[in-house]
Amino acid sequence: MTTTSQSIRNRAFRLRHRPVGEPGPSDLELVEEPLPPLADGDILVRTLYLSLDPTNRLWMSDMRQYSPPVELGEVMRGIGIGEVLESLSDDIRAGDLVFGYTQWQEHCVAGAQAGFSVLPSPLPAPLTAFLGVLGHTGVTAYVGLEMADLKPGETIVVSAAGGAVGSVVGQIAKARGARAVGIAGGAQKARHVVDYLGFDACIDRFAPDWREQFDAATPDGVDVDFENVGGEIMDHVFMRLNMNARVILCGMISQYDAAGADSSWQGQVNMGQILMQRATMRGFIVSDHYDQFAAGAAYLAGLLGEGRLKYDETIVEGFEQAPDALHRLFTGEKAGKLLVHVADPS
Amino acid sequence: MTTTSQSIRNRAFRLRHRPVGEPGPSDLELVEEPLPPLADGDILVRTLYLSLDPTNRLWMSDMRQYSPPVELGEVMRGIGIGEVLESLSDDIRAGDLVFGYTQWQEHCVAGAQAGFSVLPSPLPAPLTAFLGVLGHTGVTAYVGLEMADLKPGETIVVSAAGGAVGSVVGQIAKARGARAVGIAGGAQKARHVVDYLGFDACIDRFAPDWREQFDAATPDGVDVDFENVGGEIMDHVFMRLNMNARVILCGMISQYDAAGADSSWQGQVNMGQILMQRATMRGFIVSDHYDQFAAGAAYLAGLLGEGRLKYDETIVEGFEQAPDALHRLFTGEKAGKLLVHVADPS
Repeated sequence: MTTTSQSIRNRAFRLRHRPVGEPGPSDLELVEEPLPPLADGDILVRTLYLSLDPTNRLWMSDMRQYSPPVELGEVMRGIGIGEVLESLSDDIRAGDLVFGYTQWQEHCVAGAQAGFSVLPSPLPAPLTAFLGVLGHTGVTAYVGLEMADLKPGETIVVSAAGGAVGSVVGQIAKARGARAVGIAGGAQKARHVVDYLGFDACIDRFAPDWREQFDAATPDGVDVDFENVGGEIMDHVFMRLNMNARVILCGMISQYDAAGADSSWQGQVNMGQILMQRATMRGFIVSDHYDQFAAGAAYLAGLLGEGRLKYDETIVEGFEQAPDALHRLFTGEKAGKLLVHVADPS
Repeated sequence: MTTTSQSIRNRAFRLRHRPVGEPGPSDLELVEEPLPPLADGDILVRTLYLSLDPTNRLWMSDMRQYSPPVELGEVMRGIGIGEVLESLSDDIRAGDLVFGYTQWQEHCVAGAQAGFSVLPSPLPAPLTAFLGVLGHTGVTAYVGLEMADLKPGETIVVSAAGGAVGSVVGQIAKARGARAVGIAGGAQKARHVVDYLGFDACIDRFAPDWREQFDAATPDGVDVDFENVGGEIMDHVFMRLNMNARVILCGMISQYDAAGADSSWQGQVNMGQILMQRATMRGFIVSDHYDQFAAGAAYLAGLLGEGRLKYDETIVEGFEQAPDALHRLFTGEKAGKLLVHVADPS
């Protein structure tokens, strides 16, 4: 049987090198190649938006990680939103908007095992929200906070507070009656986290006295550290942990790039505070918690509808720009969720 | 009212300096001073054995820790076993053998708030066992393992495997059907941990290829890390953690002495594995778990009675030797539990 997919010349990025330091265009190769025909149960998806996430950097490396690294020569792994152009599936129809592992390509042919999920119709929020506050990054914030057992009146610290996950963490924490203190890169970003996102305080980690500022902003210590960065920032936060504190290890973006900005950091010297404060540190990966996606998305949609959840997006124009945009996740040259606009829905 | 205590010239060690590097005799001053009279409810205790524990080093420092540091000029804090010479308490009688914070002194006058507990009579095990396998170090092993949720067939790694806590951890783990892999300082000690204590394997951390040996001894990875040492040893163990691993942070003896042997270690570079493996790290201090002391001691006494729990002791002779013996906890020049013999029961 001939299917529409066979008439398409598909553009895809394949992993050429494992990055050393900052990832960039030389690590990925843009190829144009035919698509396979659809088998029974398959769908053909056109990518509309591609999500750029710090974990992309991890997948490009061969460090010991939570899923197999992308192999050299393989299409780069990535999450996106797409439109179904053709379907041989009983569950998904042509015209549906779907969320899933589109990978870094303009089209994909995917079977049921790829796990694409259909977005609600009509959409209750802008399409791009489903790669952010109502998508995997929003649900990451939700799932991590569920683990943290955060109580009203407690203090939570959020690193990368202006990022896709951190910005949602602080807002959920506020909605639950906690004190939210952010850490962000840059004075302007830190102000935005307070003025727009509504955190109680946010520290600019580039300020020479950021440690003193942080201590002043956490007069009652830290009950929960929602950690997205790791390294010297986490190390300092540890000195403010309260008894029975919870450290939710969501990301360690300072550590994914061994040749990166954090090389001056000489060790987790304050890790003993986990012992002294009888704290619990727990690492999690949101993909282990698909059973909480529906509850999380519904909760976040509720906050969004009530006007209590704000978000920022940085949308890069054009599929071919994806590799060059990747470094922004680590340099902070973006606001909130970083996306690549690949195509418009038909 | 005149009490016996007033006729005693008591010898005590008071903290003179906060140690820099290894703790030693110059940090403590031996004084001889009168004891106060007993008030209603008080007991007069003669110290028989003094327990030396790595946490002593911590108490001597002013780092942020789990209880207030010992103040300069104060009698050094310490746990011991003593004989009650005189009692104005309704609960404890003269002649009783007691366990508690004797402090570093030959006698103490203590009220009910000091929390001394009476040892069973007749003693079901040698007296010194109540400062070791049946005392706070044995119960530390028990409590930490309760937190670890160790299952039969899993692999547990125990650092400082020949020490007072580690040696008991491995033996309980074996009794529960797990694979116990120790890490100890020295080839002879490592052999002893296997041959006498019954661990499945034990790595000499001074061997040049200890990392390779460790990897070979954990073919199925590590499900539980019972961590007593921290630093570069823990860092390597992290690379072997399995999915959903538990790290029980019981001690970090490599970190209590900032000028010590671990200064070549440049950081917890593999901490990201807590995230990647969705692991949980939990710090605990046994004194938070008094409610488990009775169950723990009973469980351990059962194993001991069945001949399934072995232990080593290093007994230093003479109260005045206590400061000089302290460094052995960190250099490893001792086997098992380190005690100071102060006096014999009457």
